[in-house]
Amino acid sequence: MTTSNSPQPHLDLKAPPPLPAGGLRVMALGGLGEIGRNMAVLEFDGQLLVIDCGVLFPEAEQPGVDLILPDFGVIEHRLEDIAAVVLTHGHEDHIGAVPYLLRLRADIPLVGSRFTLALVKAKLREHRIDPVLVEVAAGDDHLAGPFHCEFISVNHSIPDALAVAVHTPAGTLVHTGDFKMDQLPLDGVLTDLGAFARLGFEGIDLLLSDSTNAEVPGFVTSERTIGPVLDSVFERASQRLIVSSFASHVHRIQQVLDCAAEHGRKVALVGRSMVRNMGVAQDLGLLRVAPGLMVKLDEATAMPPEQVVLVSTGSQGEPLSALGRMARGEHHQVTIEAGDTIILASSLVPGNETAVYKVINGLARLGATVVHKETARVHVSGHAPAGELRTLLNVAKPRYLMPVHGEWRHLRAHAALAQETGMSRDRILLAEDGVVVDLVDGKASIVGSVPIGNVYVDGLNVGDVGEESLQARRILGDEGFVALTVVIEPSTRTIVRPVHLSTRGFSDDPAAFTEALVLVEAELKRALAADDQIDAHRLSQVIRRTVGKWVSDTYRRRPMIIPTVLEV
Amino acid sequence: MTTSNSPQPHLDLKAPPPLPAGGLRVMALGGLGEIGRNMAVLEFDGQLLVIDCGVLFPEAEQPGVDLILPDFGVIEHRLEDIAAVVLTHGHEDHIGAVPYLLRLRADIPLVGSRFTLALVKAKLREHRIDPVLVEVAAGDDHLAGPFHCEFISVNHSIPDALAVAVHTPAGTLVHTGDFKMDQLPLDGVLTDLGAFARLGFEGIDLLLSDSTNAEVPGFVTSERTIGPVLDSVFERASQRLIVSSFASHVHRIQQVLDCAAEHGRKVALVGRSMVRNMGVAQDLGLLRVAPGLMVKLDEATAMPPEQVVLVSTGSQGEPLSALGRMARGEHHQVTIEAGDTIILASSLVPGNETAVYKVINGLARLGATVVHKETARVHVSGHAPAGELRTLLNVAKPRYLMPVHGEWRHLRAHAALAQETGMSRDRILLAEDGVVVDLVDGKASIVGSVPIGNVYVDGLNVGDVGEESLQARRILGDEGFVALTVVIEPSTRTIVRPVHLSTRGFSDDPAAFTEALVLVEAELKRALAADDQIDAHRLSQVIRRTVGKWVSDTYRRRPMIIPTVLEV
Repeated sequence: MTTSNSPQPHLDLKAPPPLPAGGLRVMALGGLGEIGRNMAVLEFDGQLLVIDCGVLFPEAEQPGVDLILPDFGVIEHRLEDIAAVVLTHGHEDHIGAVPYLLRLRADIPLVGSRFTLALVKAKLREHRIDPVLVEVAAGDDHLAGPFHCEFISVNHSIPDALAVAVHTPAGTLVHTGDFKMDQLPLDGVLTDLGAFARLGFEGIDLLLSDSTNAEVPGFVTSERTIGPVLDSVFERASQRLIVSSFASHVHRIQQVLDCAAEHGRKVALVGRSMVRNMGVAQDLGLLRVAPGLMVKLDEATAMPPEQVVLVSTGSQGEPLSALGRMARGEHHQVTIEAGDTIILASSLVPGNETAVYKVINGLARLGATVVHKETARVHVSGHAPAGELRTLLNVAKPRYLMPVHGEWRHLRAHAALAQETGMSRDRILLAEDGVVVDLVDGKASIVGSVPIGNVYVDGLNVGDVGEESLQARRILGDEGFVALTVVIEPSTRTIVRPVHLSTRGFSDDPAAFTEALVLVEAELKRALAADDQIDAHRLSQVIRRTVGKWVSDTYRRRPMIIPTVLEV
Repeated sequence: MTTSNSPQPHLDLKAPPPLPAGGLRVMALGGLGEIGRNMAVLEFDGQLLVIDCGVLFPEAEQPGVDLILPDFGVIEHRLEDIAAVVLTHGHEDHIGAVPYLLRLRADIPLVGSRFTLALVKAKLREHRIDPVLVEVAAGDDHLAGPFHCEFISVNHSIPDALAVAVHTPAGTLVHTGDFKMDQLPLDGVLTDLGAFARLGFEGIDLLLSDSTNAEVPGFVTSERTIGPVLDSVFERASQRLIVSSFASHVHRIQQVLDCAAEHGRKVALVGRSMVRNMGVAQDLGLLRVAPGLMVKLDEATAMPPEQVVLVSTGSQGEPLSALGRMARGEHHQVTIEAGDTIILASSLVPGNETAVYKVINGLARLGATVVHKETARVHVSGHAPAGELRTLLNVAKPRYLMPVHGEWRHLRAHAALAQETGMSRDRILLAEDGVVVDLVDGKASIVGSVPIGNVYVDGLNVGDVGEESLQARRILGDEGFVALTVVIEPSTRTIVRPVHLSTRGFSDDPAAFTEALVLVEAELKRALAADDQIDAHRLSQVIRRTVGKWVSDTYRRRPMIIPTVLEV
């Protein structure tokens, strides 16, 4: 529960003043007020440091959009000032927008861990961009312009995640990236509380910390606890087993592989990103694969079902994924049989519920047993809940906190946790995208804000679909349209061609507008007879008004009305 | 977790044979394979008994649709055969489609409890239908044609809910309606296990039982436990309090009223259905309101914020609800202030997640503290989870079970629970909408199925929006459209009027199709020159093909293309 004592948001901020000399400026171009497109920009002495550059996946309100990017508008005239982009880990909401930033300037150095850089490199290859990569590891230092970066290992739902401390003459900023505090991580890589404590002792002026699970009480359950649950499901499965998970969750997949080996089953990977990422993970020694364990999918489908496990993408209900096709009986290689077992060893990302349940219901209808996080403990979150966020605050003892990575409910809950640990409310900076925080003379404060828009990727284009198109899509998608075209002869003031009707998405009844057409013709004739001068615009309004009123009275609906008056 | 031993669904069923003499037929027109539009039809000796007649709320795949009705197609030629409609309780997914059924035949008797009938009567008044009502209470008998109905009290998230036992010469069918087994219900009305045991002793041939929470382990927490949680939130609230809940959840609202009285706050109801339903509940003695507790909304807004509680609709994130408007700062009477407390004392209906979180985030952004079911125990479900479903099966000992009210995942999970209690798999009838179950000579079996469609209500019309319109809406909503109109003179084979372009929802760039227009003109001229005969259809195809290829190559998108060729 959030408390009522949280500081107020600053909803009516003005443009920020120039950054005072010796000050450090922080602003998010994405990730504050939303889960996704994380991107923080730091400025010191005329130079910029970017931390993460991710994408946001659209919701129902952004129909037809493929991706939403951070708004680069604030920095696109200052691309040469960017000293580096630090990538904390390889999830899409942290690296997905890198290709779009590098389209603007390809040689911005990308700083990150081995696995993070391997994933971003594979992504950039698809965009035909050859990046400048700077590999770092926990404990390393890296100087990017005036930003002295120090990297700290953190534990998350992808290997090789890092937090970053940025030392500048203005003070020290620490950005946690995404993290949790699994005390028994599969790879032994812990969130380095010692490093946070040392930094806290040296003095953290401003902490930017992951708020995703701030509303969730307690502490994480270890990733390690999933193994025994998988084992019990494997134990009971007498036919085919399919496990679906995020394609970057190396430790989850590792446990599936271990369980498969234990139960004498071979493993086939299904889905392009699964094959690619696990290949990378294996090459880097992050995924241990027993010799002979892996088989190709066509080998797996030829084997007795009780001897294989398929590891598949599609855990978020994506209709075109392998699992989505299987659930509809449309996968060309895998047919679900009654008695098969499917495990969704994954989170349920908000907004995907309907799609995921559709897949589960499709599989259940075909007779499969579906095990998912609401029926068994086959998933643990990658983000620190309340207990761990308090722990970090108590260890790091920051002078100021800026909750990041979250919708307003998460940011506000994080602020409440900080107050519980004794931080005073004026030291908690509740900002949303575009809000500018300056650290000057050891004091951090909100000094203004710049407008941050949603930048939409739709097909090959970035930015041409905006609010106008989306508003039209929302109306068209709910109500359909009716287009009425009339050809008139201006000199004789006559209708040359009767009104032509074209309608889609309004009704399955082809005669739905028959009555309206008669009305429109009559109104047009009246207007043509009455007016001294032919005015196509006025005639269009006659059509719009006549049809609009008729359709509202007759159907109580509001389709988009597109009148066209052509003069010949 | 569902087990792998569940019976297979019957996916390729034929039309059912005629019902043998002396047999009882059961078929669902809605509610099996989905949560909502519950409607079961029983047939014996040429007569029909309907149990419930509810609506389903549309998902993203049914854009613009207001409601989905059960498919009356199977019974609309047999309306005179309907002996009665039994309504188990007053939720929309059980009574919402009654007006549409009564539009076909207004004098079908509606049988239900006092509160259920009061709610359905208020609904029918809006449709200007004066129904034939038959009020019954738990323990009552009612003979509707050959169906001897006996009513049993059950506990649910609305008062006055009933299960029904239908005795026929073919055997006894028991339908639970929606139920749970709160052992400390606020009004003392328990699910009558004694009655179920007696019926079981006498012999239940076929049990139709609520599957909604079959995947959820354990037993319900009592509704009564919410009171102390509300109390603790009220205790800490120093400003305005707003509680949002379902407008029919009398016991939840009762606890809010009691808590308000305890804390010396007045209560104002906000939202049309909240005011109406609580009025009905108070009239029937189901809601106890202390004298002087209630005030009107305009009185409440004039009082000091710490002295009032607003009880509002909008708990499912409905954008037009009172709470939705407050969250956007658009409510004309209530302005959210930093420090206000809002409690969403309600479930989160699947599919509404994004809308609900949007409201929560809007409120959080304005500085309010939002308490919801994921941050505090302010909601308990109204449906029996696994432990209670097992209990009912063990008490009622039905010969056959037909899980109802659920998506496939719920039906299958319910089947698995029944097997755990010792029912053999051939006694569990896993059916979806339209599947026909006959009880003949004490043996129940699936004998066929009839197609059941989705019947959409959109505005004033029922049924004119079908799959064709929805498919068009989905394309238009994702991609927009481009309409190209050309006027030609057939005799001279010339273009009289250059191609007119009209596009919406494709791009915010007004020049998005400039290049395509040039191409289209050229292609049209070529076609006109080449063809001996002018063919508007062929010219339309030229336009469609030219623009389709161009837009796919240029944008990698697929807007709807609407070519129109007019001849003058």
